Amino acid sequence: MDYQTLAYDVDDRILTLRLNRPDALNSFTVQMADELEHAFRRASEDDGVAAIVVTGEGRAFCAGMDLTREGNVFGLDESQEPTIADMRERLDAPEIASGVRDTGGRVTLAIYDCKKPVIAAVNGPAVGIGATMICAMDVRLASTKARIGFVFGKIGITPEACSTWFLPRIVGVSRALEMLYSAEIMTAEAAQETGLVRSVHEPEDLLPAAYELARKFTAHRSPVATALARQLVYRNMAADHPLRAHESDSLAIFYASREDGKEGVASFLEKRDPEFTGKASEMPSFYPWWE
Amino acid sequence: MDYQTLAYDVDDRILTLRLNRPDALNSFTVQMADELEHAFRRASEDDGVAAIVVTGEGRAFCAGMDLTREGNVFGLDESQEPTIADMRERLDAPEIASGVRDTGGRVTLAIYDCKKPVIAAVNGPAVGIGATMICAMDVRLASTKARIGFVFGKIGITPEACSTWFLPRIVGVSRALEMLYSAEIMTAEAAQETGLVRSVHEPEDLLPAAYELARKFTAHRSPVATALARQLVYRNMAADHPLRAHESDSLAIFYASREDGKEGVASFLEKRDPEFTGKASEMPSFYPWWE
Amino acid sequence: MDYQTLAYDVDDRILTLRLNRPDALNSFTVQMADELEHAFRRASEDDGVAAIVVTGEGRAFCAGMDLTREGNVFGLDESQEPTIADMRERLDAPEIASGVRDTGGRVTLAIYDCKKPVIAAVNGPAVGIGATMICAMDVRLASTKARIGFVFGKIGITPEACSTWFLPRIVGVSRALEMLYSAEIMTAEAAQETGLVRSVHEPEDLLPAAYELARKFTAHRSPVATALARQLVYRNMAADHPLRAHESDSLAIFYASREDGKEGVASFLEKRDPEFTGKASEMPSFYPWWE
Repeated sequence: MDYQTLAYDVDDRILTLRLNRPDALNSFTVQMADELEHAFRRASEDDGVAAIVVTGEGRAFCAGMDLTREGNVFGLDESQEPTIADMRERLDAPEIASGVRDTGGRVTLAIYDCKKPVIAAVNGPAVGIGATMICAMDVRLASTKARIGFVFGKIGITPEACSTWFLPRIVGVSRALEMLYSAEIMTAEAAQETGLVRSVHEPEDLLPAAYELARKFTAHRSPVATALARQLVYRNMAADHPLRAHESDSLAIFYASREDGKEGVASFLEKRDPEFTGKASEMPSFYPWWE
Repeated sequence: MDYQTLAYDVDDRILTLRLNRPDALNSFTVQMADELEHAFRRASEDDGVAAIVVTGEGRAFCAGMDLTREGNVFGLDESQEPTIADMRERLDAPEIASGVRDTGGRVTLAIYDCKKPVIAAVNGPAVGIGATMICAMDVRLASTKARIGFVFGKIGITPEACSTWFLPRIVGVSRALEMLYSAEIMTAEAAQETGLVRSVHEPEDLLPAAYELARKFTAHRSPVATALARQLVYRNMAADHPLRAHESDSLAIFYASREDGKEGVASFLEKRDPEFTGKASEMPSFYPWWE
Repeated sequence: MDYQTLAYDVDDRILTLRLNRPDALNSFTVQMADELEHAFRRASEDDGVAAIVVTGEGRAFCAGMDLTREGNVFGLDESQEPTIADMRERLDAPEIASGVRDTGGRVTLAIYDCKKPVIAAVNGPAVGIGATMICAMDVRLASTKARIGFVFGKIGITPEACSTWFLPRIVGVSRALEMLYSAEIMTAEAAQETGLVRSVHEPEDLLPAAYELARKFTAHRSPVATALARQLVYRNMAADHPLRAHESDSLAIFYASREDGKEGVASFLEKRDPEFTGKASEMPSFYPWWE
């Protein structure tokens, strides 16, 4: 796949996914949504990729939806009166899929489904969809030049990309509401104080720090166990009862223990590094357990 | 509507809702519950109100349930043996509604349903229902004289007003449990350290700070987009899957984009302030999507 | 019941539950799981126990699963291909119960069901199940010698004991994922910074601090109201709508008010300590309301 709006580069099992419209401050288009969705689903199944670092080419991370474009940037078709029943029952029907569905949400749902750790390296302005997109990533590192703003309120629209599901689970409900209501641009330091950003780095140190974290997440790791851990967290943290976690994590540890877990325990007892053979593209039979 | 226990004053589109029984430290009565529920439902639909600031008249915010009153302060009827099935199936039947339902919960459910940002300006003691009530508000500012206490445990009763739903989502489960078990009165600073309180102010600066925040939340804002954002957060943060958010925020941005969003984008591109015409009393057809 | 792997000591209504395999750094076995599950269910119903402090004998809290043992430490039976349907529909069937179910999860589900406040006093290394087990406890105090590590990733297995349900609700999703992915051992101070640990103490001050907190949670408290508050938090914080909280906390305050609440209010008005007579072993008729 040849991307027009992204650079997809794998080095040492770490995929760098770079928003690549620097002349437009990496502003978001329908094509970028399509390509991001594709890239996350592809990386999820690519056994050559152990973790994903997302950043922006040039001085911005993503300056939001490209509002200068002709036509239907929000997928808007004024002749439609879609209802919540339409969304629940025929989300993939063409007129809903292309006319109503939020393009940012297609991307964050692909991130949610991903089997690999996803690290945002926010190198500059991350505004609108640039801000909501990173909420679906596992951790966010920021350059001192990062600026993060959920600016929807300033232009009469609403937060998207499932951010109202992700953001309160990162920073709590009150901070989430204040970010959305105020619609202000936060500095990297202010974002760190809220818990949205994990750490702040000098611009030249941002990607090295992101790669260091990615290596910590992936060196001597079972890709199967990592994929299971990621999905256990995202599925179980929203479940109504810990019994749901017990069901799924019993299966996860049962299956992991008879594959990579054997090597893991053996290597631990023998005080050597493990050599895992499992592949994220070949998950245990109970996966995906939520379907 | 003429309130006996509240002052309802609108200035510059900001409603100040003042608990107004200062001689009784604004302690909570069934009448106050009725009036608060009415006031929040009224303000939600009043297009002259863009945000709500809640505070107390005199030196207290709310000293808790008025325990000195004659009769049934908890709506208690000892001849009843209500079950959870009663609550689920006939919550509004007279004997349940007036005899069993927690009065504080009627208020916080009205706050939950509200279309306007709700800011607590905690000017003094906020104890019992005074503490739980503010958990349903979006953010909490406190005076240095504020004292917040979930004191239920000290008098053999239990936290109410849906606080066990709201509080852990603000401060996390462990801090919530410690506040409830210890039943201690926290200073404003201690409450801020937990994340329950957003900021602490000198007494004379409290209301100005609350109004400044309210203006930041409302100036050049679409009332429709604000109402949608508020409900998206409260509904989606408790949903079991981000797909629920995708369904509702797709619709929200679809409808917002063809009304106030058009003006918002135009004003942004033209570098001028927007002039929104949408009204919270006339929401898009998919609202309320959860019914 | 005579425990082999635990010490169960009650003093002044506080149960100290001590993991008691010090020569093996209190590493976790199937027997320890059985005994812990039994001890929590017993303490829950024992009216002589008002709160529970969990700690480790010797220099460790719990060094994780005992990997040196012969046989089936994970309950693994390689001839089985269990599915999520098996877990949902026949969790207690012998081949699932003993062959697939995570032993740590049996313990944390017993903690979840418990009617008493549960305080972890982490005296030393708490690794693997030692780390996940404490996530189900209400608050965690740590000695400066505590080291906490969700090390599963290092040995090719996955987090268990329902930790993916509990941990994100304590520290937020991003910190939870980073702890699991990195699989690193945290110092007590680092764990405190994340919110996982409430307070850090010199080794000799750890148990005194835990007991002081336990007394604060239990002195002049209604055991019925405390049990209700605990379950209201754990059930309602994961509910999809605050109406679920309204239903259950209306009943809780209704029933509490006509028993210990009467004495509580009377003692408050008379400015004396209350004398509660309710028992956790005899809960109001609506309990457990979730069944």
